[in-house]
Parts: sequence; structure tokens; C-alpha cells
Amino acid sequence: MENYAKLWLNYSEKKNNKDCSALKQFVFSGAFTSDKIIENAKKELLLGIKGMLRIEPEIAVEGTAVDPSGLKRELTSGSKIADSEEYSISINNESINISSGSSTGILYGVFNILRTIACEKDVKKEFESGKTFRPSNPLRMLNHWDNMDGSIERGYSGKSFFYVNNEIVIDERTVFYARLIASVGINAVVINNVNVKQAASYMITDRYFEKLAELGEIFAGYGIGLYLSLNYASTIEIGGMDSADPLNEGVKAWWKEKMAEVFAKIPTLKGFLVKADSEGRPGPFTYGRTQADGANMLADIAKEYGAIIIWRCFVYNCRQDWRDKKTDRARAGYDNFMPMDGDYHDNVILQIKNGPMDFQIREPISPLFGGLKATNQMLEVQIAQEYTGQQIDVCYLIPMFKEILGFKTYAKDTDDTVADIISGKTFNSRFSGIAAVTNTGNDFNWTGNYLAGANLFGFGRLAFDTGLESAEIAEEFIRMTISSDDSVVNTIKEILLPSRAVYEKYTCPLGIGWMVTPATHYGCSVDGYEYDRWGTYHRADHLGIGVDRTDKGTGYALQYNEPNASIYNSPEKCPDELVLFFHHLPYTHVLHSGKTVIQHIYDVHFEGYDEAVKLAQKWDTLKGRVDDGIFENVSERFKRQLFNAKEWCDQVNSYFYRKSGIEDEKGREIF
Amino acid sequence: MENYAKLWLNYSEKKNNKDCSALKQFVFSGAFTSDKIIENAKKELLLGIKGMLRIEPEIAVEGTAVDPSGLKRELTSGSKIADSEEYSISINNESINISSGSSTGILYGVFNILRTIACEKDVKKEFESGKTFRPSNPLRMLNHWDNMDGSIERGYSGKSFFYVNNEIVIDERTVFYARLIASVGINAVVINNVNVKQAASYMITDRYFEKLAELGEIFAGYGIGLYLSLNYASTIEIGGMDSADPLNEGVKAWWKEKMAEVFAKIPTLKGFLVKADSEGRPGPFTYGRTQADGANMLADIAKEYGAIIIWRCFVYNCRQDWRDKKTDRARAGYDNFMPMDGDYHDNVILQIKNGPMDFQIREPISPLFGGLKATNQMLEVQIAQEYTGQQIDVCYLIPMFKEILGFKTYAKDTDDTVADIISGKTFNSRFSGIAAVTNTGNDFNWTGNYLAGANLFGFGRLAFDTGLESAEIAEEFIRMTISSDDSVVNTIKEILLPSRAVYEKYTCPLGIGWMVTPATHYGCSVDGYEYDRWGTYHRADHLGIGVDRTDKGTGYALQYNEPNASIYNSPEKCPDELVLFFHHLPYTHVLHSGKTVIQHIYDVHFEGYDEAVKLAQKWDTLKGRVDDGIFENVSERFKRQLFNAKEWCDQVNSYFYRKSGIEDEKGREIF
Repeated sequence: MENYAKLWLNYSEKKNNKDCSALKQFVFSGAFTSDKIIENAKKELLLGIKGMLRIEPEIAVEGTAVDPSGLKRELTSGSKIADSEEYSISINNESINISSGSSTGILYGVFNILRTIACEKDVKKEFESGKTFRPSNPLRMLNHWDNMDGSIERGYSGKSFFYVNNEIVIDERTVFYARLIASVGINAVVINNVNVKQAASYMITDRYFEKLAELGEIFAGYGIGLYLSLNYASTIEIGGMDSADPLNEGVKAWWKEKMAEVFAKIPTLKGFLVKADSEGRPGPFTYGRTQADGANMLADIAKEYGAIIIWRCFVYNCRQDWRDKKTDRARAGYDNFMPMDGDYHDNVILQIKNGPMDFQIREPISPLFGGLKATNQMLEVQIAQEYTGQQIDVCYLIPMFKEILGFKTYAKDTDDTVADIISGKTFNSRFSGIAAVTNTGNDFNWTGNYLAGANLFGFGRLAFDTGLESAEIAEEFIRMTISSDDSVVNTIKEILLPSRAVYEKYTCPLGIGWMVTPATHYGCSVDGYEYDRWGTYHRADHLGIGVDRTDKGTGYALQYNEPNASIYNSPEKCPDELVLFFHHLPYTHVLHSGKTVIQHIYDVHFEGYDEAVKLAQKWDTLKGRVDDGIFENVSERFKRQLFNAKEWCDQVNSYFYRKSGIEDEKGREIF
Repeated sequence: MENYAKLWLNYSEKKNNKDCSALKQFVFSGAFTSDKIIENAKKELLLGIKGMLRIEPEIAVEGTAVDPSGLKRELTSGSKIADSEEYSISINNESINISSGSSTGILYGVFNILRTIACEKDVKKEFESGKTFRPSNPLRMLNHWDNMDGSIERGYSGKSFFYVNNEIVIDERTVFYARLIASVGINAVVINNVNVKQAASYMITDRYFEKLAELGEIFAGYGIGLYLSLNYASTIEIGGMDSADPLNEGVKAWWKEKMAEVFAKIPTLKGFLVKADSEGRPGPFTYGRTQADGANMLADIAKEYGAIIIWRCFVYNCRQDWRDKKTDRARAGYDNFMPMDGDYHDNVILQIKNGPMDFQIREPISPLFGGLKATNQMLEVQIAQEYTGQQIDVCYLIPMFKEILGFKTYAKDTDDTVADIISGKTFNSRFSGIAAVTNTGNDFNWTGNYLAGANLFGFGRLAFDTGLESAEIAEEFIRMTISSDDSVVNTIKEILLPSRAVYEKYTCPLGIGWMVTPATHYGCSVDGYEYDRWGTYHRADHLGIGVDRTDKGTGYALQYNEPNASIYNSPEKCPDELVLFFHHLPYTHVLHSGKTVIQHIYDVHFEGYDEAVKLAQKWDTLKGRVDDGIFENVSERFKRQLFNAKEWCDQVNSYFYRKSGIEDEKGREIF
């Protein structure tokens, strides 16, 4: 018995499956080399078909060999990643044909067919007219914030399965992990925390090369690129130098030698993720250099190895004085990175968090999207539910990600959404994509709450195909992971789909964010970050609440392209859900909804708690209809969620009632 | 060079000393056995006189031997501890005579003379007419909250000097510690945290007996009794039983056997301190028994060994619902312990925190003092500055302790102060006294901030003689520890004496307490404990603030004897400094001072910060006039204190301005 759940790769028997006679013969065709990936694809196909259909298919591999030396360099080669990962599925007579220009495409085709069967769709009908699939995003990445001591920063599902006591662990689970994420289309993984500390600084030394090479090979066998978070100050921390100045010749020389060593020892390594000049981490600013100086220095050296540098834009002043109302953390990303648009070299990607703050349940979209026009960009989201319930509270994030991806930036007349930009379409960029801070750990079910698995599954699926709908993804997850019973599927969909809206209702109102317990970030503390150094304020007094980020305030609203700038700049035009992010308003201000701000606060909090209770009740109806382990796991989490939701509801309402003195129109109990 | 400061035992040369010819000849006389204590007294006297006066005195010991077996049992013998520790000093011709009924009394006499010299007083003048000294309190105790892993709960001056890696460490510093605290009159030490966890549960097993016996001998050589904190659930945790029910015969039998073993192995052991049924610790309540049942069970067994059980009264519901305005943590001590007054056996002492909450900068006195009339009582104060600046902010606590000791309980017509009660006078009780949660650690200077040493010194001095004045004690500390220069002494006195009032001004106003950062308890967070489970609320809304603990509220005020009950019950009569502890009042309520509540809040916060700045400026004038190490240590702390004071000032003022909307009459800057 494994010590981990197989989730959507459980390949349990599908009894309802229709005419599966077509599934006895498979052909893999195209211009690929028959490598480890093809071997894995065959193994997966056999395992899945045998498990689900109890038949043993034949598989013919008809690949046209290509130069394998070219594969390692695909990142800087002529063709784009997404092109090479495209695949088609068609049915000819009794045979199913998967064709692709890469072995990875074949593997994805296999997972597609297995998913189709697992969801009990009619394979013949699905593919009889032939279908082609092309990933929406070149890079579809998971960022692990795993520390080498086994802890996980913002981890809510146990310890790291990559590290124990500062050693890299490779076992059966490692391989399963690769299968699990490859099956939903992930093609890149950063295996260590962006805050590179202690042992992790030695990741790029002899101490870990052997294990990293082995891990990289496993990943490569599933089309997954291995990436490492880099300590920007490595020259100092492990190099014994006294500088990390990107323009210092000694620093460059050190990196040149180091990269040569690293890429020689870890041939599958695809690049690095860097958090510099952020929250106390060292960076180029320390030496009076630009972020571009830092990123380009590393990128120029890494380029020789076909590797890329992913540079995080999470740079802001984390020692702000709460008394200072002029400095605005929301402005920082744009202020720090826009001036150098066009200066970043070809193999640098800026990784931009979805919002200008930090993964709150509601934020506007970062104005860097639509601002940057000559820079490779990646969207960073967080499926680790740091501010969204910590895998205790159910919060299916795909609807939120859909909103983010669909945001019109007005950077161009057409093809200007965030999805367009990160796909590479808008500016015809080479390197782009989407990354999620992952929600995995060594818990049996990987994600703490079984239902949080929907975010891991869903992120991958959405990253591969941003056109998928939230409901579609949820349904796939439920059918593959929990149950094929239609009524169970519907019940769980009814829990997942509204869960983000419910969470938003009982937590921070109208886009203001941050009313969380300091440090842990779970649970309500309305003033928790109000008098702190993190640039995170709601500015509530007895008359009103909100941050003035208009042209009369910090000016943040003007960082957007028109008409977004004008919309956000106006309290009348600004959408309700973001109105306190952009405006300081009296409690008596009337929203588009027709409610006052204060009545909105009362209403959504009471509603949010009531709706959370209803979600829990829905789950209760599943007792005996889903696996007991899954049932108990989610039930226990719901118990905690309801406690949390009640605290949020009562604390927020009491806080604003005590502060404003304005009665709830409906006379409900406020303390 | 030692790795610790010698503080008030530095015995540096005293050049100003007048006619010291009398100090060449000493006589120790009385009914004592010439034991280890006498040996230590001689050593100390020689060391001190040689160091300070550069002469070598002769010492004659003329003790009338007493039965040494009696000494070990003094706690339960006929005479009271304080009687046996009494001593006299007189001068005959050229000889100074110290006489006492115990060797400990002789040792105290020696320390008295050395202190007199160190303070550059005229020894001849002081003692020529003969003086007798009798400790005010039988037990004068330090409670260490040291954990065996070396950490210290609420420790602000390094790690434990008793424990490293779960082992007991005995070295030169251990002996110096015994000298240091004996010199100020401490005669009892609990060496482990009241929260007995992990390794500490094994303190009463073979694993630690040898070291404990050695430690106990060292302490005994300085008249200090060794005490241990006990895990009430030892029968379960180390005994392998499934009960800790005090009325269970198996439990009793286990303890009987265990105590026999413990007292055989650690002959100097004087007793135990127990925290039961408190903050998650197990206790008799778990088994439906009373606190008296628990304490008496242990006491009856310990009695055979002349030992006592000190039972903490810190029992309250720490899982309160903040919405619940009826439950009142302040009531808990009285509610839990009063009903059994008279039921506690002879060798049980209830240890009562000075206030009903938890060591806030201002609290009313626990109504158990004056309530309990047939129970041995000990006062517990905290010189570890958990809520009073954490040995970063200067906060000389002796003035606060003087207030506590001087509080009239009206338990009797006369001799009814807290000092009277704990001295044993009020109810003629055998076992009583005062304990302080200590502020020591392995920092070079023992207490983090050099000036916090005044609390360690002062606590001992005050415990021995509650009649001493705060200024007198401060002056002794400064002269003995820092400087003999009158202007330096005066400057530091001007810093120490008002420091508690200053700290109170810039922190929680009018007795309300608790506006601290959760968990760490340092720094301001006005709502930090407002929506929490700890029973610690200020109940501020836009109209007013405070907790109604009158007959119309929780009724806590009525736990006091009259006239205290009526005074506290009335917003008109209640002293300003406690008025928000007892009353919920509008911000516009006019205090005795003539100011409104809100204007008081603004004024004291601005004043408090300004006064803290002035204290720091005073310290700055000492550069070059005190030891550089001391100067830098305190300067660095002052820098942090001013940052802290500014945060408190601005956060509290902003919080109440934002909430009340009432302007500061003086128009100062509020955010």
C-alpha cells in the first residue's frame, strides 16, 4: 500500500464504459525519438487501459527519429515549446492514433485518452473526427516553496516529499508525482523555495548534483523541465566573495564557472527562478543596479546552456511606515519593472503575481500585464491557499484564475487579455506562461483537503488549455478522483464552484484584503496588518474605509491602460468588488448593488457564513456515497472552516459596527 | 574572565571609605552549627572586605552547635522560617558581631555588612547601637520558567544557565548565582518552568537525581531551598498509569513511592510548585475533584519529608468566546479557590498572582488577598518583563510591588495589607511569602538590560524587607553595580524611579491592559486580544471603552471586601488608573483628573513617549561616566524602547481617534 493517494491516476475500473472495442490498438506517430518519454507513455497507457477497461491494448510506435541533441536545447531553438507539444488524436478503423512532433506530445495524448475514459466519455465520439490539442501556454509550471529541512513555506499538507533533513529524497512517490502533474500538462517544476536559505544555497554544489541529476532524469521522462530557485547572493554565500554586484567582473566569472559546472552535472536542468531584492532577500538594488542588470547577467551565462532565468517581480518596500499614506505597495511592481521594459534579454522571463499585492482573495490584476510590451512575462498564481483558506476552507480557485486570464489589459486592440499575453500571442514572445505556487505536501492526499486537489488538477488543466470552463475542470477532477456517480459529481460541483465566492463573502470585503492574522495568514484579524510595516492597510475610521489609489491618492489606478485607468479611478465606475481597493469611501456610500458599504459588509458576512454552512451540509449528504477516508477528511476540514467562517463573520461585523455605530438594517446579532 | 557579570557582588575597591579600622575583626555568634553556610559566609566576607577595603579581616566563629538533623526539617518544625533567619549586627570595641539562631542568618549578616561597605556607608555609624534584621516574609522565592531544552518561557536575557540539551549544567556560574541571590535574601528557588513538559517530566526520575542533589547542596550552602515544578499528571506521563485522580488509591500509592525516592535522592529538596488545570495543563478538575483535593493529596505525602506544596491559583477558562460578555476571567481565581478556604492542608501554600489577570502594567490586586482567611498564601509577581517591556524597555517594578504590598484588603481591622498577609502576620499563618517569575538568563549581564538587574536585586531586597523604599533599593543597586559617583547614581535613579509610570503612560490606559501583540506580548496591538479566546477584552466601540465588572456587569468588583467593593463598583469613586478595568465608560466621561477619557488617552500617550525620550537622553549623559559595556547595552535598549514607545503612542492614539472621531484638544498629530 502506497503512502499516498493516486488521485486522478487511480485507474479504477469503469463499468459504464460504452463500446471500447476501438481501444485495443494504438499508434504513436510523428517526428519524435523513441525515448524515455515514449516508454513512459506506453507504460501509462497499458496501466490505465488495463485498470479501467480490463483489456490489454497493442501499441505501435512509429516515430520518425529526430536529432536527440536538439531536444535538450528546445528552449532556445527556433520552434516554440508549445508548438512541439502539440498533438492530435484520431481514430482509423479499429486503431487510435496519437501523433505529435515530440514524445511529450504523445505522452499528453495518452493522458488525454485516459482522462476521456476515466470521465466515462465515449472515446469514439470524442475523437472520430480527429482533434488537435495545443497548449495555451509554453511554460506551465509549479513552484514548490519546499525548504530542504523538510518544511514548506506556506505549506498546508504536511512536509516536503522532496527533502528530509537537508537531503533530496527520491522514491516511488517522486515518480508518481511526475506522472500526476504531467497528466494535467505541467511541463516545468521549481523544486525549492524562492527564499533560498541555508542548505538550499548549496543546491548548486557537489553536495546535491547527483540527486538532482537523477531527479531531472525522472522529470524529463515525463516532459517536465527541472528548475531551481537560486540564491542571488551565491557569490557571497557559497562563493566566498564579498560582492553580488551583477556588473562586477569577478561575480560574472564566478557565475560562468558555476553554470558550466551545474549544467554539466545536471544535464536536464532548464533554468532558474530568482527572488531578488524582495522581503529581505539580496539583489541588484543592493549594488545600485537595475533588476534588468541582475537578470541579464545570469541569463547571458545561462543562455549557452539553453536555459532561462525567471525573475520575480515581487519587489516592494517591506519596511513601510503605516503612518505614511503616500507610499503604496500596490505601485511597487510597476514602478520597479516598467522603466526597463525592453531591457530584459531574450531568455529572461518576468514572473508577475496576478495582483499587485500578494494573493489576496480579491485583487485587481497587476498593471504590469498590459504595461510591459517588450518583455517576456509569466503569470504567477498561488494554489497553496495562503490567504484563501489554507486547505482547511474549501476554495476552488479556478473561477478566480479564469477571471484573471480573461482580464482585458487594453495593451492592443485585440488579443490583449492576460491569457493572450502569457500565451505569447499578444507580443509574439518566445518564453511565457503560467506558474502556480503549489499546494502539495507529503500528506496522504497530497493537498491536505481532498478537495484542494481540484486546484492542483485544475491549475494544470487550465494552464494547458485556458479555454476550459471551471465547471468542466471540476467535473473532470471529481469523476477521475472521487466518484463517477452523477449525483455525487453534481453535489461536489455545487460545493466547489461557489466556494471562492463564499470565502470572499465571509472574509475581506470589496477588495480591501489583508484582514488576516499576522504571520500565519489564517483567520480574521481586522487590524492585524493595519499598523504594521508591510504596506497593507484598510485605513478604516468611524466614517469610512478604503485606500485612495486614485489620481488624488497614490495614483496607482493610473498605472493601467485606458479605459481601465478611468474606470478604477472613479468610485462610480469602479466595480463593487474592488471599490475599497481603489477608494476611501464613507460607510454610507451606495454601491452599484444599491447597498451602502456598511450594509454590504454586514450582508455578505452573514450570507457568507450561511452559505459555508450549506456547503458543509451538502458534503454531509455524501456520507457512504464516497470513500470513507475522503469523506472524513473533508468533513473534518469543513468543521474547521465553519468555525473560521463564523469568526470572520462576527469579527468583521463587530469591528465595523463598533467603529461606525451604524445598525444592521436587518437587526441581526452583532457583538 | 568569567562569562557573566558580577553585578552587585563585584567587590571593587571603595576608596571613599571612612574609618574602617573596626572591620578587621568579626565574630559570628549564636545557636547554629558551623556548616557549609558558615564556611561560605566566611569566604564571602574575606572576599568582599579584601576586594573593597584591601584588608584581611579575622573571623571568629562562636556557634553553639544545634542538632543538624533538625535543620533539614525546619519547614515543619515548631519555629517559623523567618524567626530562624533573624540576625543582629553590633559593634563591640574593635569587633563586629553578627549573631543569629541559624547559619543562614549569619550569612545574611555578612551580606548586609558587605552591602553597607559597597554603598560607602559608615559601618560604625550604621551598627554602633546594634541592629536586628528579620525577614518580612518566610519564603522569598524565584520561579524560573526555564525549559530543559535551554529555552526560557518569557525569557528575555538569553538561554537557561541551568539546562543545555535536556541536561542540568553545574558550573562556576551556578555557584555565583547562588551567592548573587542569597546576597539579596532569596531563600527558595524553583528551577524549572511551571509548564512541565517533555524532559522536565523526568526531573523526578533517576535521570536527573544526581545533578539535582549536587545543585541542592550548592543552594543549601547559601541558605537557599531547592524546589521543583511538578507535572501534576506524572502518574500518567512517567508512571504509565491512566489516571491522575487525586482520590485514586493507585495514584496516591504511586506518589508515595515516588516521593520517598525523590526525597531520598535529593535530601535538600524543600517542595514542589504545581500549575494544574491551567492553560491546558492537567489537574484535579479533569477528575471532578477540587483544587484542594489535588494539593492536599500531594501535600500529605510530602509532609513526611518536611516539604511543602505551592499550588498556583492561575486557573481560568482559556477558551472563552469573545462574544460572551458574562464570563469574566478576572473572577476566575476567586471563584475557583475561595469556596475551599480552610480546606487546604497545613503545608499547602496557594501562590496568587498580584492581579486577577496576568502581570499587566496595571491591575487591581487579586481579591483572593483579603478573601482567603484560613489558607496559606504567597504573592506571585513577575520580574521577567513579559508585559512590561521585556527587558528592552526600562521598567523598574519595585514601585509597583510597593503598591501591591501596601494594598489594604480590609480582611481585618489592622494588619490587613497584602504585605501583612504574606508575612504571616494577618492570619498567623506558618507558610507564606513572595515569589517572582525571574528575569535571568545566560546573557553576560544576567537580565538582558543592565537596568533590569534592579528588578532582580530589588525583588530580593523588598522580599526580605517590605519596608524598604523604592528609591533606597534603587540607590543600593546602582551604587553596588554601576557606580559610586553621586551624580551618576542620581541620574540613574531619575531613570529608574519614574520608568514604570512612563511605561504605563505609553501603553494601556486606565487599567484596561492587554493591547499587546498576541503570543509575543511585546509591542502594541490594540485589538490583538480583543477577538481572542483568552478572556482579555477592552470592548471599545465608537462611543466608549472598558469592561463593566460592577454589580450590573460581571460582578467582579463585589469580590472585594468593603469599602474596596463599593469604591471599585462606582465609576465616580474608582481610582482613575483602574477605571476602565471596572467600568465601560463613554470617551467623554470626565475622570478625577478633570480630563475626559479620550483626552486622557491622547495626553498620556504623547507624554509617555516624550518622557521615554527624556529618560534616554538622561542615559546619554552617562557616556564615559559608566562602564562602556553597560553604557552601550542600555543605549541599545533605549533605542528599541523609543521605537516601541512611538509605536504605542501613535497606534493607540490613532486607534481611538479613528474609532471615536474625537479630536485631540491640543491638535497634535494623530494618524
